[in-house]
Amino acid sequence: MDKKKLADAIRILSMDGVQNANSGHPGAPMGMADIAEVLFRRTMRYNPKNPSWENRDRFVLSNGHASMLLYSLLHLSGYDVTLEDLKQFRRLGSKTPGHPECDMTPGVETTTGPLGQGFANAVGMALAEKKLAATFNKKDLPIVDHYTYAFVGDGCLMEGISHEAASLAGTWKLNKLITFYDSNGISIDGEITDWFTDDTAQRFSSYGWHVISDVDGHDPQAIGKAIAKAKSNTDQPTLIICNTVIGFGSPNKQGKASSHGAALGDEEVSLARKHLGWKYEERFFIPQEIYEAWDFSKQGAEFEKEWDELFAEYKKQYPIEADEFMRRVQGAYPDGWEAKLDETIAKWQADKLDVASRKASQMMLDQISTLLPELIGGSADLTPSNLTQGKGSESYDIEENRGGYLHFGVREFGMMAILNGIALHGGFVPYGGTFLMFMEYARNAIRMSAIMKLPVIQVYTHDSIGLGEDGPTHQAVEQAANLRMTPNMEVWRPADAVETAVAWKSALKRKDGPTSLLLSRQNLVPQERTDKQVQDINKGGYVIWESKGKPEIILIGTGSELDLAMQAAKRLDKEGKKVRVVSMPSCEVFESQDEAYRENVLPSSVRKRVAVEAAWTDYWFKYVGLDGKIIGMHSFGASAPADKLYEHFNITADAVYDAALSLK
Amino acid sequence: MDKKKLADAIRILSMDGVQNANSGHPGAPMGMADIAEVLFRRTMRYNPKNPSWENRDRFVLSNGHASMLLYSLLHLSGYDVTLEDLKQFRRLGSKTPGHPECDMTPGVETTTGPLGQGFANAVGMALAEKKLAATFNKKDLPIVDHYTYAFVGDGCLMEGISHEAASLAGTWKLNKLITFYDSNGISIDGEITDWFTDDTAQRFSSYGWHVISDVDGHDPQAIGKAIAKAKSNTDQPTLIICNTVIGFGSPNKQGKASSHGAALGDEEVSLARKHLGWKYEERFFIPQEIYEAWDFSKQGAEFEKEWDELFAEYKKQYPIEADEFMRRVQGAYPDGWEAKLDETIAKWQADKLDVASRKASQMMLDQISTLLPELIGGSADLTPSNLTQGKGSESYDIEENRGGYLHFGVREFGMMAILNGIALHGGFVPYGGTFLMFMEYARNAIRMSAIMKLPVIQVYTHDSIGLGEDGPTHQAVEQAANLRMTPNMEVWRPADAVETAVAWKSALKRKDGPTSLLLSRQNLVPQERTDKQVQDINKGGYVIWESKGKPEIILIGTGSELDLAMQAAKRLDKEGKKVRVVSMPSCEVFESQDEAYRENVLPSSVRKRVAVEAAWTDYWFKYVGLDGKIIGMHSFGASAPADKLYEHFNITADAVYDAALSLK
Repeated sequence: MDKKKLADAIRILSMDGVQNANSGHPGAPMGMADIAEVLFRRTMRYNPKNPSWENRDRFVLSNGHASMLLYSLLHLSGYDVTLEDLKQFRRLGSKTPGHPECDMTPGVETTTGPLGQGFANAVGMALAEKKLAATFNKKDLPIVDHYTYAFVGDGCLMEGISHEAASLAGTWKLNKLITFYDSNGISIDGEITDWFTDDTAQRFSSYGWHVISDVDGHDPQAIGKAIAKAKSNTDQPTLIICNTVIGFGSPNKQGKASSHGAALGDEEVSLARKHLGWKYEERFFIPQEIYEAWDFSKQGAEFEKEWDELFAEYKKQYPIEADEFMRRVQGAYPDGWEAKLDETIAKWQADKLDVASRKASQMMLDQISTLLPELIGGSADLTPSNLTQGKGSESYDIEENRGGYLHFGVREFGMMAILNGIALHGGFVPYGGTFLMFMEYARNAIRMSAIMKLPVIQVYTHDSIGLGEDGPTHQAVEQAANLRMTPNMEVWRPADAVETAVAWKSALKRKDGPTSLLLSRQNLVPQERTDKQVQDINKGGYVIWESKGKPEIILIGTGSELDLAMQAAKRLDKEGKKVRVVSMPSCEVFESQDEAYRENVLPSSVRKRVAVEAAWTDYWFKYVGLDGKIIGMHSFGASAPADKLYEHFNITADAVYDAALSLK
Repeated sequence: MDKKKLADAIRILSMDGVQNANSGHPGAPMGMADIAEVLFRRTMRYNPKNPSWENRDRFVLSNGHASMLLYSLLHLSGYDVTLEDLKQFRRLGSKTPGHPECDMTPGVETTTGPLGQGFANAVGMALAEKKLAATFNKKDLPIVDHYTYAFVGDGCLMEGISHEAASLAGTWKLNKLITFYDSNGISIDGEITDWFTDDTAQRFSSYGWHVISDVDGHDPQAIGKAIAKAKSNTDQPTLIICNTVIGFGSPNKQGKASSHGAALGDEEVSLARKHLGWKYEERFFIPQEIYEAWDFSKQGAEFEKEWDELFAEYKKQYPIEADEFMRRVQGAYPDGWEAKLDETIAKWQADKLDVASRKASQMMLDQISTLLPELIGGSADLTPSNLTQGKGSESYDIEENRGGYLHFGVREFGMMAILNGIALHGGFVPYGGTFLMFMEYARNAIRMSAIMKLPVIQVYTHDSIGLGEDGPTHQAVEQAANLRMTPNMEVWRPADAVETAVAWKSALKRKDGPTSLLLSRQNLVPQERTDKQVQDINKGGYVIWESKGKPEIILIGTGSELDLAMQAAKRLDKEGKKVRVVSMPSCEVFESQDEAYRENVLPSSVRKRVAVEAAWTDYWFKYVGLDGKIIGMHSFGASAPADKLYEHFNITADAVYDAALSLK
């Protein structure tokens, strides 16, 4: 069958889907249809009936606004995406939301739309494949052996994250990452000549990529040849630059920005049918012979069967490794890990371990990195400050393809989006570190972890003015609140080594979303706790100091400031005040407790409440209301030694004490 | 005098400063000292006695951790930075904070530290120079004619923002931007070979830059030649790649990461003196002949005098343009602009203008762009969605160097950091637009606007689930709270066209910090107001609907949700409830009112309060406390038409009504 007709089926469904929703982006799907046909019909190894087949090729649509391209492909190739689903494009609860969402639609590997990030996810997937292959593959038994394909648009390549991700992909020699650049010369503002003049081929060459330029994106043969050439390169990722016409097939809008982000209009949809030589005026109609030519179910089942046989042979020869592989890709932990960490928690409590929480975190990583071979992570060039390298983590040796510690360089955004890609691929527990402030460089990737419910662990050290001399550009103020207000994010700001250990354990156990660990640069005072209190840390907030009798005043503290609350409480207690201290390392975990527990910790009748945290105060009105007081930051920080700053900003035990007494 | 000795003076002061503070970064100052000597003694035109001379060359230390380099230079060349100031390095309130802060130290052009952003600021400064020159220069009277020099390190170039900024600088042909890359092969994690393998020369060539590679960064002659070559290029920015040794002069730590971010140690400081052939063991001692060779006061005064004469001649020939130039660089507005906008506000109130706030914003820009020639701004490739181009704003024509509307491409972070640079340069009122969600890509540059107190105006449209079908990746939830919690940020979320106009006026009047405008995609219901209420919009929060008699219930709304509060209030009122509605377009402006006003609007005795906003609810505890209710978002958004989403997430007038009645 004429390949062009097969590609046109994508164009038809895409423009019909957008037209039907009266919202969406027809231009890129129509422009990339020919590339997609080559890829999904003749290149990729996947099984539409089992989207979670472990060794499937991964496909990432980084230009996520082209969602109808992906939905059309999934429908045509035989995934569980029906014609009716396509008609529900952009409607509430449908399988076909405005941008692809990996938890809504079978076959969607990652949620995209925020530009450039899908590309970075793909880098993460390709790295995961490469590293998993190194761990598990045996001679003639390559159970991990797949490609990662990504589509990127001009927008993706203008974004800074494309620089970070491409640079790492080149450095890491991810030869099984093949990226198609939809070079159509158009972005939302129009022809890109006045704002995007990069020589992209030269740019990617500078990253150590294999670049195949000037491919006609509407010539299936040329595309096929380029893919073959890409695969023949065994030590570089490949960028295939495809010249395409945006909105290809729309006689009046192709090649123009008007085809980018709005329905073509009913009349133009009809004209495009004529222009393409498509014989069927009926909307959403695809003739049977085209469906048959597209259906990948049989071929996909064969591909998977081949792999099943390979894996069966592998299991026969390497039963332990086979079980371990399955454990890894299914995300189960090895037995006994939790008990080991519980021992540590108990020991640290008994020993009154007196270290910075970043140091306690490193001591946890020393253990976790030996307990969990699936641990992979690193730092955005702050390893000696973040203390993110555990004893069991060897730095990634690119030539040897060995070691689970990644030096990301100063690339926070790239790091977090790559970690998302690793998490999406499976087989690993990813984490990454930077200063809490520089979370901001990575901010939207972190939000994407939360949207995608990915268990990515973020290690943010130097979490307040406690970092001292580096000054206001480096001192977090509003960042804790920002993370806490992110849906589906769990934030921990532990008060000492023991709470840090519990926070790490909680982060590892969490499988449906990211966890942020906010850690101090400075040493923290170890707090006394009963066994029950140690247990209660798991509840996110708990009573750590109890008044004699019913409390009249409640002090709430987190992290490095909990001890200020404790000091104030002890003084108030001596003076006969009935005061309780609540340690609140994780507000989100506390909120997830039942109401009885929460009411027990923070009785609604007690309105004399003081919260203390070296961060923007506003967040804490949630817990102290209009009658309480909040000791914290009301401005940016300053450059000075930490102790001077605490005095200067009046975040002291005296301030907590005074605030408590001032409450009426 | 031996140039090396002059450079060594920087090394001595830098290592002594860091040693004295026992904190800081000696490596880069010692590595870049020779380049700095050529630049500050023999290249740049500046007057240390007048750091605000309009036509001075700009210098940006993008690798801001090398702050002691800059402080040493300012001290040696004759700025008001004393030896005592250097001894106060990193102490509270000193002129020499840990990273350079432009409002703390004469001669510091921009606050740096967050890597890559200084470089983008420099791009903004160079663009400002180029555009100001085009507006004001006359034949033989180039009153605007200076260079912008930037130092960047490996970290700056790893960051994604370097891609965005460099790409635009190349596209804009900013030939008077000369950047020195401190290529020392070391970053915090160690030798960069495993994480930074870019061919940076090739990369910058791909952006259309003039690249001068392989310059010996310790050879003043080679550096001088490179600068001359850079200046001879009249249509490209130049990158001079200097090979340097980090910590140059420290016998045991040079060339190593150990010299990067910590004091060398007292012994090593002595050994370095010997190694450099520096004869004086005394700390912070610079011999008189070196001071004399460095002092730039006389030369600087001559430079400025030359310019004063040029400007006097200009003023003679072009008195109107000369006054206009001074008005522009001093940041004063032309007479009458405010009255014009007030007329618009009154007219829109009278006409009940019924548009989306993004549309009202565009209508304001139509006027402002004709009233204020200093307006410069654009969008990160969302012009037709953000509606950021006013009638008086022609798209920037690069060849003609004409037009104040900038198409930034899909580069939010670069855009905001470039706008910071334009604001720092002076002569312009900069603004930039994107979707509220993609503020996150630019997040740390926005924070830097606030730290530096720059009047950069941010236009964030599509501010909630109201954007509809594009789905959760594009729908802001926690972003409003994040901006509001940023110190020194003023956020406006106007409820209709009239509040939008007031918000724009407020943003323009604000000269000591940034303003964020959060604007709707969807149409907003125009609210009725008395003249006094129209005036009170300026106070950030005001009573827009008053109960008959003392209120028992207060409803607080912002933006697109104010009307839900109004609908609920009218229904409650009909049912005999005493209800007040407070419109709160700007919490920060409201908080800046005196206590009497605030108490008048939100009497502390009234605890039955409901806040409604299509955003994360937690922020509003600040205003409703523990006894009130908040109608808003508790999760990410979803993909569907906006009206369906409001129903789905239960952000409706009924929900507000029910919440109000449920309060006890």
